Amino acid sequence: MPSSTAVWQGGLEFSVNQDDHEFTIDGSAEFGGRDSGPRPKNLILTALIGCTGMDVVSILEKMKIRDYKLTVRASGEFTEEHPKIFRYIKIEYKFVGEDLPLSKIERAVELSQDKYCGVTEMLRGKMELSFDIILEKP
Amino acid sequence: MPSSTAVWQGGLEFSVNQDDHEFTIDGSAEFGGRDSGPRPKNLILTALIGCTGMDVVSILEKMKIRDYKLTVRASGEFTEEHPKIFRYIKIEYKFVGEDLPLSKIERAVELSQDKYCGVTEMLRGKMELSFDIILEKP
Repeated sequence: MPSSTAVWQGGLEFSVNQDDHEFTIDGSAEFGGRDSGPRPKNLILTALIGCTGMDVVSILEKMKIRDYKLTVRASGEFTEEHPKIFRYIKIEYKFVGEDLPLSKIERAVELSQDKYCGVTEMLRGKMELSFDIILEKP
Repeated sequence: MPSSTAVWQGGLEFSVNQDDHEFTIDGSAEFGGRDSGPRPKNLILTALIGCTGMDVVSILEKMKIRDYKLTVRASGEFTEEHPKIFRYIKIEYKFVGEDLPLSKIERAVELSQDKYCGVTEMLRGKMELSFDIILEKP
């Protein structure tokens, strides 16, 4: 069963064990933390780009498309009132390679966004979600 | 502006930079990964316990309640059909200390769950969310 455990270390710092991997999360100095690890709420962005990124490389692998580099980036902005959630999240998929097949790449991203990515599905309807695909030559 | 960037490393592995902290995420062997870091979808659990955990220690600090240990754990189960989301998430707040003030602790957890925790708010309505509070003597 998926689980995660966070043990308080004082201040806003927690030691996390997730999937048998240990890491630290912390608040920024602005909110009384010591920045000893990433912010928990922004882990939503990482969950999202990790989930869709793994989908996309898996789908492209099945299409025998392998010769590219991929960077996935998400950015957003919080609402001003509590509880502060993302008003919107923009995802950018940047592929670098020679002769990249745009229509297959678009298809892979759309399959992830529409069908496979559980994180997208958990956030859908809660905020504006948009994505861009960028193709670049090396 | 909050953001996160993931650079594909081959397989299902991505190097993440979030809040100027670097870490690796990866899939399990079962899904073709090498388990070199935590799963992205389970980061939803870590985002949730980190967000509410930081709320709770901050609220208790304002109530001058400081002499305790806290472990926050979340577990859930995925739906069977794509897109696989959490069907439910259970959160357990375990406090260890002498003479812990239950009603104030309950108040702090409820303030987080009902008012402050943006991650709870982003997931609300998408799945069953429940929480337990456990008080233990050292």
